[in-house]
Amino acid sequence: LDEKDEQFIRASLDGVNPADITQLLYEFDTEESKYVIDLLEKQISAQIINDLDEDTRTEFLGAFTVTEISSFLDFLDSDDCVDILMELSLQTREEVVALIRDEQKARHIQELLHYDEDVAGGLMAKELIKCNLNWTIRQCIEEIRKQAETVQKIYSVYVVNNTGKLIGKVSLKKIIIAEDSAKIADIYDDDIVSVATHMDEDEVASIMRKYDLEAVPVINAKGRLVGRITIDDIVDVMQEQAEEERQLMAGISDDVEEDDSVWKLSKARLPWLIIGMVGGLMGARFIGLFEGDIALIPAVAFFIPLITATGGNVGIQSSSIVVQSLANPNVFAESMARRLVKVLTVAVLNGLILALLVFGSVILLYKEEFLAITVSIALFSVVLLASFMGTITPIILDKFGINPALASGPFITTANDLLGLGVYFTVANLLYGIF
Amino acid sequence: LDEKDEQFIRASLDGVNPADITQLLYEFDTEESKYVIDLLEKQISAQIINDLDEDTRTEFLGAFTVTEISSFLDFLDSDDCVDILMELSLQTREEVVALIRDEQKARHIQELLHYDEDVAGGLMAKELIKCNLNWTIRQCIEEIRKQAETVQKIYSVYVVNNTGKLIGKVSLKKIIIAEDSAKIADIYDDDIVSVATHMDEDEVASIMRKYDLEAVPVINAKGRLVGRITIDDIVDVMQEQAEEERQLMAGISDDVEEDDSVWKLSKARLPWLIIGMVGGLMGARFIGLFEGDIALIPAVAFFIPLITATGGNVGIQSSSIVVQSLANPNVFAESMARRLVKVLTVAVLNGLILALLVFGSVILLYKEEFLAITVSIALFSVVLLASFMGTITPIILDKFGINPALASGPFITTANDLLGLGVYFTVANLLYGIF
Repeated sequence: LDEKDEQFIRASLDGVNPADITQLLYEFDTEESKYVIDLLEKQISAQIINDLDEDTRTEFLGAFTVTEISSFLDFLDSDDCVDILMELSLQTREEVVALIRDEQKARHIQELLHYDEDVAGGLMAKELIKCNLNWTIRQCIEEIRKQAETVQKIYSVYVVNNTGKLIGKVSLKKIIIAEDSAKIADIYDDDIVSVATHMDEDEVASIMRKYDLEAVPVINAKGRLVGRITIDDIVDVMQEQAEEERQLMAGISDDVEEDDSVWKLSKARLPWLIIGMVGGLMGARFIGLFEGDIALIPAVAFFIPLITATGGNVGIQSSSIVVQSLANPNVFAESMARRLVKVLTVAVLNGLILALLVFGSVILLYKEEFLAITVSIALFSVVLLASFMGTITPIILDKFGINPALASGPFITTANDLLGLGVYFTVANLLYGIF
Repeated sequence: LDEKDEQFIRASLDGVNPADITQLLYEFDTEESKYVIDLLEKQISAQIINDLDEDTRTEFLGAFTVTEISSFLDFLDSDDCVDILMELSLQTREEVVALIRDEQKARHIQELLHYDEDVAGGLMAKELIKCNLNWTIRQCIEEIRKQAETVQKIYSVYVVNNTGKLIGKVSLKKIIIAEDSAKIADIYDDDIVSVATHMDEDEVASIMRKYDLEAVPVINAKGRLVGRITIDDIVDVMQEQAEEERQLMAGISDDVEEDDSVWKLSKARLPWLIIGMVGGLMGARFIGLFEGDIALIPAVAFFIPLITATGGNVGIQSSSIVVQSLANPNVFAESMARRLVKVLTVAVLNGLILALLVFGSVILLYKEEFLAITVSIALFSVVLLASFMGTITPIILDKFGINPALASGPFITTANDLLGLGVYFTVANLLYGIF
């Protein structure tokens, strides 16, 4: 590459799958990558730019002129064009759209730019094959032939009536098997699942999973067919969801990867660390109220980590079970009251077992009954409270439209640390006062 | 339903999508469900049984005779049949297979039963359309017509040579557009991605994502086409992976859901709670070594939760970033040395910021310099150590074939609690000794 041996590069990349070239480019810097992209056929370059991850692409696109960017868009589906355009500044975006040669495509892209990124309208592509209810198979095949260039993968042909309303579909298999003279009206399948333009992407994903669909048509408020969402976009949505959840559970506040800059990595991690630190300082303040007790019986301090760690563990377990139910609409939600009764039953059972184990261990190791009683009563109460908090927090977050997985992260640990300390020292203070 | 009004049930379920009936059944008990299933057409019943989640199905199948189960299998793809058979006892399984009428299907199922569940061979179905390189489009369409009943969704027709070796594919779109007399050899696409029977399901998923495939052919060691994996199975694999990761991060040791029994829920949660408890008791033992220090300066105990919580948070952040890199083969892994240098740079930066904030806060709130110095030096060291542990643990787990997400759960919190306490009290002991 350093020697800019065009011939050699062209020869070695010929016939290689674009997705593999994309992987290679991650090893190059922007200038080198641009050099390679310029050598390739426009169609392959367009595919590669489409495959790049968002951060790399945003940076990379800066190296191209608006004319170059617009020429890539000629080879991409409308939904992918919109994704790329959204990464450009408003001005560049308009310039690029103005340069798209295919007028219909430019119109489609303008339409798609209006939708939010995370609803069905923002995921759908305009490229699809539709046929009228009154057509014959022959007319339908003619239409497929005409659109063969624009629509890469067909899956099904959608059937609309004269007003453009979606009323069914015909699979390619059926079209191949049917006689050329057969009428669409006689063979189409009217049992069709569709989604509305404003449907949230999570809901679209769960519908496509539920019915095992590889593509789903999108309809507007009037029932007219306006686009199509394919499974590859939904696979990306699922991937993003999993990553977002992992980040929330880990207390990372930005979408970072290991190969991001040191500064970006630090910045993403600091917010929750600082919140945890403030929680820790509040905990210190609180324990300080019992300074007298600690000076008198230092052993009380020994069990602080046991109490806080158990509270944290129980809280995260509880919340993640609720998060799972919320994410999985297959499971019928039990009533709130029954849910809490069950959570508390489990908590009582686990709390009792843990408390008994700790009671035995403290008696064995320290031979101090008061201490054993204090620690085990506190532990039992903490398990109960942490279960309750862990169950209720994700449900409340979800009600307010916040991703409930947030409740499985440092949020619940910090809250439960404080809660645990409160319970522990209150119990200790009371019991040692009694005896 | 109670009145067993057959006519009414039949009428109200007519035309309803099987996936929706499945959802309804979750509300019924086994006996009621069986009553409904028996009323429906066999093909729809089979679909519903295929859709049911594993736990419910295993229980539900107990209500059916081997003849009934075998008759359901007639309507399902070979891979789905195998999933259902794997839930039966070995004896029932053999009886059911013996009753399958279609001999070829029975042979296929026998073959698939040999593969592990989590490799390509265990995911693939035998139902696919293949054609010989020397055929014409007309012959190919004849084959599609013949197999139309068995192969529900076709996507692509796979092209094999005379020895059965996979050499390419033809999309249905191309078949529709092509002349009947065209030769497969002239129009087929030889750039085809396939997977080997023994490939791990995670790798299959990442290949299908990378190349945006809705189906991938499976080949054996000789390059012969033996099956096909469709995207709906991969979507299920991704879903399972996300759930497994959530459970590992939350310290839940079994695949449980909110509507499982109290006992099952408790049992899944206890192991990590007990491990955490043992960690807590060890922590208590360790703090006990410094009883004298605490009795003298109880304020040292105030900051225990701050130290342990920060260690836990930093550890989980670090490990989850590594887990993400390991899960995402798109990102080129940097060398181990560079990785650690970077992790430690981020740790030094975050550690310094946190230590300075804590130093300032302690000076302000407690006006004790020694204490502020002790806490902030310990905090800085804990951030460094926890980052190191959080980075190295998932890499080591991954090397030993254990899911690295385990390192983002209570495992790392417990380890870091102990580590944090060790650092904190050692620093405190040293510093107070010096001053």
